[in-house]
Parts: sequence; C-alpha cells; structure tokens
Amino acid sequence: MKGKRLLMIPGPIEFTDEVLGEMSKPTLSHVDPQFIEEFGQALERMRAVWLAPHGQPFAIAGSGTLAMEFAVANITEPDDNVLIVHTGYFSDRMAEIFRLHGANVDIVPGAVGDLPEVEAVRAQLEAKKYKTLSITHVDTSTGVRADVKHLAAAARETGTLTVVDGVCAVAGEELRMEEWGVDIALTASQKAVGVPPGLALLVANEKALDAFKARRTSVRAYYCDWQYWLPVMQAYEARKSAYFGTPAVNLVRALNVSLGQILTEGMDFRFRRHTLNARAFRAGLSAIGLKYVPVREDLYANTLTAAYYPEGVDAGVLPRIAEEGVVLAGGLYPSIKTKYFRIGHMGMSDTSEILATLGAIERGLAKSGYAFDAGAAVAAAQSLYKKS
Amino acid sequence: MKGKRLLMIPGPIEFTDEVLGEMSKPTLSHVDPQFIEEFGQALERMRAVWLAPHGQPFAIAGSGTLAMEFAVANITEPDDNVLIVHTGYFSDRMAEIFRLHGANVDIVPGAVGDLPEVEAVRAQLEAKKYKTLSITHVDTSTGVRADVKHLAAAARETGTLTVVDGVCAVAGEELRMEEWGVDIALTASQKAVGVPPGLALLVANEKALDAFKARRTSVRAYYCDWQYWLPVMQAYEARKSAYFGTPAVNLVRALNVSLGQILTEGMDFRFRRHTLNARAFRAGLSAIGLKYVPVREDLYANTLTAAYYPEGVDAGVLPRIAEEGVVLAGGLYPSIKTKYFRIGHMGMSDTSEILATLGAIERGLAKSGYAFDAGAAVAAAQSLYKKS
Amino acid sequence: MKGKRLLMIPGPIEFTDEVLGEMSKPTLSHVDPQFIEEFGQALERMRAVWLAPHGQPFAIAGSGTLAMEFAVANITEPDDNVLIVHTGYFSDRMAEIFRLHGANVDIVPGAVGDLPEVEAVRAQLEAKKYKTLSITHVDTSTGVRADVKHLAAAARETGTLTVVDGVCAVAGEELRMEEWGVDIALTASQKAVGVPPGLALLVANEKALDAFKARRTSVRAYYCDWQYWLPVMQAYEARKSAYFGTPAVNLVRALNVSLGQILTEGMDFRFRRHTLNARAFRAGLSAIGLKYVPVREDLYANTLTAAYYPEGVDAGVLPRIAEEGVVLAGGLYPSIKTKYFRIGHMGMSDTSEILATLGAIERGLAKSGYAFDAGAAVAAAQSLYKKS
Amino acid sequence: MKGKRLLMIPGPIEFTDEVLGEMSKPTLSHVDPQFIEEFGQALERMRAVWLAPHGQPFAIAGSGTLAMEFAVANITEPDDNVLIVHTGYFSDRMAEIFRLHGANVDIVPGAVGDLPEVEAVRAQLEAKKYKTLSITHVDTSTGVRADVKHLAAAARETGTLTVVDGVCAVAGEELRMEEWGVDIALTASQKAVGVPPGLALLVANEKALDAFKARRTSVRAYYCDWQYWLPVMQAYEARKSAYFGTPAVNLVRALNVSLGQILTEGMDFRFRRHTLNARAFRAGLSAIGLKYVPVREDLYANTLTAAYYPEGVDAGVLPRIAEEGVVLAGGLYPSIKTKYFRIGHMGMSDTSEILATLGAIERGLAKSGYAFDAGAAVAAAQSLYKKS
Repeated sequence: MKGKRLLMIPGPIEFTDEVLGEMSKPTLSHVDPQFIEEFGQALERMRAVWLAPHGQPFAIAGSGTLAMEFAVANITEPDDNVLIVHTGYFSDRMAEIFRLHGANVDIVPGAVGDLPEVEAVRAQLEAKKYKTLSITHVDTSTGVRADVKHLAAAARETGTLTVVDGVCAVAGEELRMEEWGVDIALTASQKAVGVPPGLALLVANEKALDAFKARRTSVRAYYCDWQYWLPVMQAYEARKSAYFGTPAVNLVRALNVSLGQILTEGMDFRFRRHTLNARAFRAGLSAIGLKYVPVREDLYANTLTAAYYPEGVDAGVLPRIAEEGVVLAGGLYPSIKTKYFRIGHMGMSDTSEILATLGAIERGLAKSGYAFDAGAAVAAAQSLYKKS
Repeated sequence: MKGKRLLMIPGPIEFTDEVLGEMSKPTLSHVDPQFIEEFGQALERMRAVWLAPHGQPFAIAGSGTLAMEFAVANITEPDDNVLIVHTGYFSDRMAEIFRLHGANVDIVPGAVGDLPEVEAVRAQLEAKKYKTLSITHVDTSTGVRADVKHLAAAARETGTLTVVDGVCAVAGEELRMEEWGVDIALTASQKAVGVPPGLALLVANEKALDAFKARRTSVRAYYCDWQYWLPVMQAYEARKSAYFGTPAVNLVRALNVSLGQILTEGMDFRFRRHTLNARAFRAGLSAIGLKYVPVREDLYANTLTAAYYPEGVDAGVLPRIAEEGVVLAGGLYPSIKTKYFRIGHMGMSDTSEILATLGAIERGLAKSGYAFDAGAAVAAAQSLYKKS
Repeated sequence: MKGKRLLMIPGPIEFTDEVLGEMSKPTLSHVDPQFIEEFGQALERMRAVWLAPHGQPFAIAGSGTLAMEFAVANITEPDDNVLIVHTGYFSDRMAEIFRLHGANVDIVPGAVGDLPEVEAVRAQLEAKKYKTLSITHVDTSTGVRADVKHLAAAARETGTLTVVDGVCAVAGEELRMEEWGVDIALTASQKAVGVPPGLALLVANEKALDAFKARRTSVRAYYCDWQYWLPVMQAYEARKSAYFGTPAVNLVRALNVSLGQILTEGMDFRFRRHTLNARAFRAGLSAIGLKYVPVREDLYANTLTAAYYPEGVDAGVLPRIAEEGVVLAGGLYPSIKTKYFRIGHMGMSDTSEILATLGAIERGLAKSGYAFDAGAAVAAAQSLYKKS
Repeated sequence: MKGKRLLMIPGPIEFTDEVLGEMSKPTLSHVDPQFIEEFGQALERMRAVWLAPHGQPFAIAGSGTLAMEFAVANITEPDDNVLIVHTGYFSDRMAEIFRLHGANVDIVPGAVGDLPEVEAVRAQLEAKKYKTLSITHVDTSTGVRADVKHLAAAARETGTLTVVDGVCAVAGEELRMEEWGVDIALTASQKAVGVPPGLALLVANEKALDAFKARRTSVRAYYCDWQYWLPVMQAYEARKSAYFGTPAVNLVRALNVSLGQILTEGMDFRFRRHTLNARAFRAGLSAIGLKYVPVREDLYANTLTAAYYPEGVDAGVLPRIAEEGVVLAGGLYPSIKTKYFRIGHMGMSDTSEILATLGAIERGLAKSGYAFDAGAAVAAAQSLYKKS
C-alpha cells in the first residue's frame, strides 16, 4: 500500500484542499444571504476568468455535455446552417447536438490528430452563409488544440457566431473571449476550472443573447432554456434570489473558491504556467522516445497530452503506472483508441506533479519491458524547468 | 451570535455528517474501480428505496427540474395525450414541460390546497385515451399530498402510464413503486433522499422503457435522452464503466452513503417516522392556533407543512424565526404567496429538530406580536410523542 | 436509526462546523508563517477571552489535568502553604497535585453540593500565611460554582496567590481575571472554549510569573516547566517561532477559530447567554419536579447542571435519553454517584439545544415510568425564554 | 500561486486523507461505545506496530517531549544510574529529563554525526551498574540512527533497562521491541505514525512495569504517573471506560485509522519501503554532490536525511525550495546549525514525493547559484527505483 494516487486524467483533476473543504460545509439555503453573495461573486469571477468583461455568465447543475446543449439549444433553430471545425470525438458530439436542435451541419474535416487550416474554414464560411461556427478548443480525445483566435476572427468577418466548446481548455488554455470575439464559451467544472464534476458553465456575449432573443421558435430543451435561467443569474449577480431550479449549493460555493484562487494567480501567469508544464511534460516523454497524437507542435494542447504507446507496449501499462502512484486515461478516439493514452496536466498541477507523473510513467514503461535510460524523462523535464 | 441555524425548508435539508464528509473526499476518476463499485451500489440502493425491485434507476447531474424533463422527454412524442392532476406550482410546471415536448395536455383542476378526487381523475381517464397521467406526489408549493396509490391504480386500469414527480416525497412519503404500478418516479437529491443538490434521480419500470423504445420520433433534449444514459447505468450496475457525460463523482458517492443510511433505517420505519414527526409538528402549530394550506387532513404531507400566518402576522416573522435559530421558507404558490409559510421536516429530521423548530416559531411569533400561551406548541408536540 | 445525537455532557461539547472543519486542514509546519500568525493570534485572543489584558497565555498539548499541574508545578515549592476551597472531585484533585509538588495543603471543607462561605475562607487566610489559594470555579462533578470574585479579593488582601481551575468555566462563566485579581486561570479546550480535547490552556499574571521567577528549587515536572514554554509563547506572539515541543498544530488552529467566534459574540453577551440558557434549562427540570445537587440557587453553575434522578428512576434512564437523541453524563462525585446525572450546556449551546435536551429528558423519564405532565419541561423553558 | 506545498520536514509530516478526514468528525463522548471500541483497537494496533505482542501501550494527550518524560518519570528514582548513548540534541534532552527526575547520568560520547560504538557502550555497562540505558533511535537533529538491536542486547546482558526514544523512528525504522528486548519505546503522533501532533505514545514491557511497581518513591510528575493511566488504558482495551483525563478524542480516532493503514501495509514491507525511499533520496542528493551529517553509511536514518549545504549555499536556499513547492527544515544541532538542512521522508511518503522533493531541491539550489547537471538528482533516484 502506498499513499494517495495522483489523478492526472483530463478531468476530474486534482482539486485544492480549499475547494474540497468547501464541498463538505453544511448546505446553505439557496436564498440564504451568504449563498446569494457567494453565487453572485462566482458569476462575476467567471466573467474575469473568461476574459469577457461584458459577458453573461451561467452556472447550472449538469455535466459538460449539458453545457454543450446549453449553448446549442438556445442559439439554434430549425434549418440554421452550422459549420463544425473537426477535431475529434467532441466536435462530432457538437455536430450531433446541433443536428438534434434542427441545424444543417457542415463539417470542415481534419485528419486524426490534425485540424483543418484556418484558411480552409474561412473559405467555407465565405462560400456559404452560416449562423454559427463551432470550435472545440481542445479536443479531450486527441489533445489537439484549435487556433480559436484566428478562427473566431474569420467567423466575425462573415457575420457568423462563434461557439467555443472549452471543456478541456477554459482557465487553462489562453482564451480572451471578448478580445477575440468569441460569442459563447462553455466548460464543465471538473477540468481546469478546478471544481468537482456537476456544474455546466457558460458565458455568452450580447450577440449570442441577441440571437437567442430573436428566435422565432421555442427552445426545444426545457432545462436548457435561457429564458428561465437568465433572470436567475441576473438576480444572484444583483445579490437577490430567484428560482428556477435549486442551485447545486455546495458545488457553487466550491466554484467561487476555485475561481478566487485562479484570479489570485492571474490569468496571464496561469496561461504561462500551463504552457510551461506542458512543455516540460513533453520534454520528458520525448526524451524516452514517445510520440504524440497531434501531428504538429502548434497543435499540442497545454492542458492534456495524448501520446502513443511506444513499440511493444499497450494499455496494459496503465495499471502499472497506477501502481506507481499516478492514474492516467486510455485512448478515446475510436480509430486509434488502443494505441495511445492521455495525461491531464491542468488546474493547479505543478512541477511536483509533472515530475511525479513522468517518474511513474518511466517505471510503468520499464515494467512493461520498454527500454530507455532510467531517469531520462524526469531529467529532461527538470532541465527544461531549470532553463525557464 | 449563536451556533448554527437549523435548515428546515423543503430542500435543501439538513444532511448527515457522513454525507457531508463524503462530499469532500478527493475526487476519484469516474473509471476508478472504487467509484464504479460505489456508483453501482447506489443504483441498486435506489431500487430498494423506491421499492421498485425491477425498476431501472438513473442518477445524473442536474436539478429536480431536470429530473422532470428527464422523465417527460423520453416518454412523450408529439400529440400524445397527457393528463395532469392539478396540485399547485409544480403540477403546472409538469404541464409546461409536457407541452414543450409536444403533448396535448389536459388538467384535472383542483382548488388551492385541494386535489381533484380520484374519481374525477378516473372519469377523465375513461372519457379520453391518455398516454400518461402525471401526479405530483407532494406539491412543494402547497404541502398537498396526492393519493398516488389509487390514482396509479386508475391509470393502470385504463392503460395509461403513471409518472410521479416525487421531488418532495421519495424516501419520505410512502411510495411503493412496483406494488402500486407507478411507471416512473423521479426526485432530486436535496430533499428526503438527503444529499446536497445536484443530482436528478429517476426510476423507470419496464412499461416506461417500452414506451421509450417504441418511439417513432427522436427525444428532443440531447442530455435527457435515455438512449445515452441507459448503457451507462447498466454498465455501472454491472461494475463496469461507460461514458456519456462525466458523473458528478462526489455527489454520487454521497448519494450512496445516504441511501445506505436510509436502508439501514428501513423504509417502513422511515415512512412511519416521517408521519409521526409531521403529526407532532402540526400538533404544535395547531395548539397555537395556526391553520394549514391543504384543506383536509388526508391531504397533509409528511415531508413539509404549509401553514397560514396567523392574524396580524406576515412574512416579517421569518427573519425573526431565523434569528431564533431556524430557517424556514416563505410561500410559493402565486395566489396566496404572501399569506403562508413552509417548513420542511424530512430526511433525518428528528424529534429534537421538531421541538427546536416549534420553539423558534413560537418565539418568532411572539416577537411579531402574536398572542398565545408560551410553550403550548412545544408541549403539544412533546405530548403527542409521549403517547406514540 | 435517527440523525446525529446531541452531545450535552460537561465536555467534550458540541463544536461548531468551522472549528471541526479547521481540524482536518492539512497540517502546517510549526514554523510556517501562516501557523506562526495563527498561533500568535490565538494567544492574543486568549488574553481577551480571559479578560486579562496583561496576562501571559500558554497553550500546550495535554488534557485539563495537565493544565492543573501546569499551574501548580510552577508556583509551588516544597513546604509552601496552600489553601483549597473544597467543591468536589476536582478540588480534591488540585489538593493531590499541590501535595505532590511539595505543598502543605489545608482544605476549607464544604458539604456535598455546597461551598465554604467566603468569610470562612477569609478567616483561614488570615489565621495562617498561605502562598496560594486554589479555587475550582465550577466543579464538573457537582455543578457547584464558587464565588471567584470575592474569594480572590480575600486572597489578595492577605497577599495570597489565587489559582482558578476554570476547566468547566472559562469562556462560559463570568471571569474577569485582571479586574478580580486572579493570578492564574486554567482550562482545557473541550469545554466552553469550544475546541476538541487535547489542549491545556492557562493565563498567568505578573504576580504568578514573579512567583515562578523567585523559585529557589527546580520545577519537578519537565514538560510543565514554564522556563521552556515562556520563550515559545513569547516568540509566537511576536510572530516568530521557537521550539520546545511540537505544537498540536491542528488543535491550535481550531483554537484560534473558536476564540475568534467567542470574541465575535462578545464576552458580556456570552456570559448572559450562558446564564439565560442555564435558567431556562433549570426552569424545565424544575417544572417536572427535579432537584439539584448544589444546595442553593446562588451555587448553580451556568455551564452544567447536576440534578438528582427523581423518585423511582436511576441511571438506567440515561441510555433511554440517548435513544431519544441526547447524550448526557452520569454522576461522578463518589458519595452520591448513582443518584444524579449531569448535563452540559456551554459553548455555542443555544435555545434549540436546550429545548431538544429537555424534550429528550422528558421522553426518557416517561419511558422509565416517571409520571409528569408531558411537555411541562419544554413549555417552562420556552416560557422563560419568551419573558427574557 | 501554485498548488499545495509538500511538507517534507521531520514532523509533522504529510498525513493521509483518511487520517485528516477523521480529525473533523464530530467529537464523540469519551465514554461513547464507538469511541471505547476505537480507542481499544488503537491500543491493540500500537502493540502490533511496535512488534511488542506482550507490551502495555499508552496514548495520552501531549507532545513528543511529554512522551520522553512519560517514560523517564515512571522508571527513575533519585540516585538511579542512567547511561545515555550520545546522538545529538535529543539525547541531550533525555539526559536533562533523567537528571530532573533524580538520576545520576553518564554519557557515552559521540562526535557530531557519529555514535559511540556498541562495544564502548557495552564496556561502560559492564564497568558500572546502570538501571537504565537510554537510546535515541534516530536523532531528529542529525539524522543519525543508532543500532538499537545490539545496544539493547548489551543492556539486557547487564540487567539494564533499555529505553528507546523512537520519536523519529517508530513505524518507519525497523524496531522489533519484543524480539530485541527493548523495555520502553516511545514516540509522538506526528512522525512516522502519521497523525497530527498532539499524542504522546509509549509501549512498556513487563520489566518496565515491574520497575515502576517496585518504586519506593512517588513519581514526581502527576500527569505522567502510570498509576493513573494504567487502569485507563486497560479499561479501554477491555472495551470499558475509565477516567483520569479526557482523551484527545479526535486525535485518538485518527490514530486508530493511521495504525490501521500501517498494519494493512505490513511492518516488514513498510520498513523496506522506508529504506528504499531513503536510498533513492540519497542517491539523488549524492548525484549532485551533497554530503551528509552522519559520518558513515550505516548511520544514515531511513526516516530523515540531514545534508550539508554545498559550497556557496546557505539556509537562504530553503525559502527558494519552498517556492518550488516543498517545505524542508533547517539545521537544529547547535554546533553546525547553519551548515545543514533536514528532509523528512517517512509515513506514507512515496516515490512521487521523493522525486518531487529532489526536483524542488535541484531548482532551489540552481537559483542559489549552485552548479550541477540539471536533472541529475531526479534521474539518479529514478534509476535506483528502476533497479529495485
């Protein structure tokens, strides 16, 4: 028996003691003045973390999948044209949800581990009138990161709304919602936002709200309908209460604590830290010969790494790495599912966790018969940290 | 300053130390063997608490409102006929959700604080073919409790599905899902189930699943679609994992603990305890002259009490009662909203909490100028307990 | 099964959620700046709670018994004359400890449940030269409370040091250490100070420190020796660290939180609240015919009540009261041990807990066959609260 | 801001989540059947961890210093001859405590970082009749580990009692109390036993108890006197209660949980794991040129390492290492205090923590201007782990 295993999957991640401690506080009434203050503050803090000073934040009980529908359902009407930037499993899911809500969906295709060029997307946006462009910022299935800044610029030029599925990105990858002209950015609590799973989070800007208000048809999903939630979010931010469904009180309080910690760190510092940790982690894996699912360096996400098992090793290495103290995730993208594994490194993940994870991967690979210089991975990461 | 205030609203309620302690445990991976075991066990325990040995349990991240849509969306197709037993605010909401999902909704009306007679419902079921009868077991807005047993029997006789919105009832009010022929019973975690808000819970029987499988149209709400969740729930119960959305790990673990405590108490004992506490609580209020929103004794819920403010008292008494240590809820049903208040007494609420609540109500009413024999309420409750 | 039982014994008591939450925070290094700040603050707050603006506070790992020796050992040398005010079990223990440290001990005797008159103590102090007068503020064994103010005045007049064993009193009973001229007042964390057991707490004034400094002989108990602890306490208060033994970090942090809550309430308000709760509690017991161990009303403690079982009832009632949800303590004073029981009502105990306790006592007594008007105890307490 | 810093000092150490969670459970009465069971079980488990199947365990509120006096006070009478094996700061403290309790103390001297040879100690034991031999198993000040097995054998041969101060050793370093003939072994909770500070722990065998029973004089320290504690420990082990001082309930429950975790790991496995981690850690430090305070390899402790700062580096490196995420301790032994630092690696410390600590030390040293191959320390540790 060892101590606690480190959870280095792409969500749920390791949460801070303060966030976990908040979870077990006796539940307040949803109309208790203290909860009203905390919920209001959490909404204000979302705006700061999303870098969307004029955005409208929403936080409701649900998973990341709900967050996706919570975006799609409100801005989509039958026969709307929607363009999807293909990234992997989660861009496919966005396509499915758009279709269910009545949209005609076109997809700009990309190979596995690759993304369509910004120019190809722009060309398609110019070739046909689309109401919405859907971008998966980081596809949790492949660790591929999209160039949201330039894709959103292309959409803006053609009068198209941009929806960013930021489930594996928000609060970890650089996202400047207002500056970049992103209209909706959504995520789930258990990723880089740093809160146990159970909250769907979304910020919409005025253009997105206008599109919602201009609807000629009803939103098809009752629980997702902004008409019910908008007054609730506005009430809590005005430090009043309003009721549509009972908020997930303990999770909302934990969210407020986590967002406070994120803002104390500062968004710029936080983006740089994620970049540095990701580089150090990859320096380690590369030093022992591993290759990545994303096909080019500019596609590598900073929140997770998807790496192919080396020659002679398969998913059987994961329980060995777990015995060495670190829990990782297997592959998810159907066509290559058995050939790669995924490591999350977001939230408060620090240098210590990066080294520990590389160490456990080394020892697990060694037990699986893979040959390499012992210590090469940890030394390479450490060397990169020293230089930075 | 005093110690902690008692939260005696109709949800969230007071949770046990074990349930709260579970909330702050480091989050496990949703594919961790320990979590798989706990989620599987929680599903099995739901079946036992619902008294539905052959039912299919679902537990997903969301509020009670989502639980309502999670029922409606899957068994409703455009132009289905649905009959609603009117009880108050929450039967109106069920009607709204059914309509959004395409149903033709008829309502058997009831006066405020009253319910349509079983015979009136039966007559309507016989007069027209309905796919579904919707019953709000206890309407949180009025404290009125429906006679689910006989209503469900009437529905069964006419080949109609019965959906029970048990948000303020399941695990508190007697509900024998299988024996009574209820096809779907739903609730939210923060009520008598005893878990902080954030989980939508539902059990469906075979007839309900058959109705789902026989659909000719798609479910309109993606996140609610049983086609995605059914394999997940079945996998966890078989102690495997499957993915659709990340489960709310900490809440699910807390659910498993709470359901374990409920089953240790035993359902029959638990129903009786809720009945006794409710009777003792009303004996107290009656002794100081208060009257109830439900118009007849057989309508009084055991999980919450809705009582009119006495002559000369208004909602201003609630903060005074809170100062005395007990948090209560104001009115909710629009037409009488300012004239009554609501007290939850479910979950682990015990004799001590009943006395403390009556004591605080007495002192609050006295401060608001209401005249009565000091101690009469607490003495009456105590006297009833002594006899039982 | 019911919810949590209320712990109404004379220590450990019910602690606030904030205090308990503090206990499980990851342990800081004893030289961590944050811990240094918190320990320093806790010492400052002790001074405020003891109403001893110029006192020297000490907080060390140990029980209340250690706190007693921590006082005695440092101010006692062989052949010192010490006078003990007899109150019960715990004044006997003080006598034992003084004797072990070499003192010649005289005792002003008192009957069970009674105390020697102040005048009798004064006469003895004038008849013989005593270095120290030892007073047990509230004897946990009998619920008898000494008149510390006037006893200390008598001691001061005769140049005698006053040591107050405040284990069942400090932070609950009125004690104005500096104003009343008390030289040492000690307690343990788990009583009215409101922190789980494990800390011995003591404040000494300059006269006590002078007596220590004037010693001609070594302190006989190493761990108790102020020479080692004084620099440590002074260092932490100066926001530096110093080492003699590792402080009980988690308990010290919980102490700081609890003392903060106490000072937020305010000492005057807190003394009055303890008095009111004690009166209400006794109004309840008296209403159903119970009698007290202390022989006169001016001897009744505000932190605990020691009451005789009524006719026909014995200690077998205690498990019945526990089944009803409230844990009480049996007798402790040898000669009457089986005839009475003890109820603690200190710390954050509020009206709700007083009513709940009286309710459980009523129901337990009824089950034990004692006859009385059901509800009389709770009604009497409630009536007294209403008047106040 | 980063995540949580790792506490790698020689106590308090990092505690498991289960142990910390236990700390915040609502405090039980010290006579509650559940607490009686848990305290009894904890005492039984101490016996198993100490490998003393016939020993008498004691657990009382206090620090490690109290544990030392708790041993000395009971077996020492005026003019007893005591021999101390000199190891550093803590052997000096044992000498002080023995002297205070009346002993004539001789010291077998050792140089800094060294220990007297077993043969030198044996010679002294044969040269003069000693009642007690005192051995500090691991001196927290120097990281020097004594050969308890052979020293105790020498003492047994000469009819001398052996007292082992195991504060930095018990449950980490191999100690087979009964097999090796150790008569008393003591420790404090916050070291390898894995419980927040506040408990003094001791196991005595029959010879030690006989020496206590044969006393002609009183024990000088009241709180330490076994005559009061023996009936308490025996009562709890017999699953009854007895009172001398209120036990530190929350700490005792945490102790029971931690001892359970230790025994689940198994003592042999645990000793080997401590040895391996210590070797890996030193492999890392040696690879970047650091030297140790203990002068020979057989003196290196497995629970902590005391290393000299390299050329050009001083204590200013410690805050830099803390910034890198790991808290270490400075020097303690007066004559070399500013020249070395100390790292604890005991309890549940695992491979991940060893790598993280070495990584932080590397980065801190680099910032302090020390030149070495980046990554050499982490790689050397990793390499050693791979081979083992």
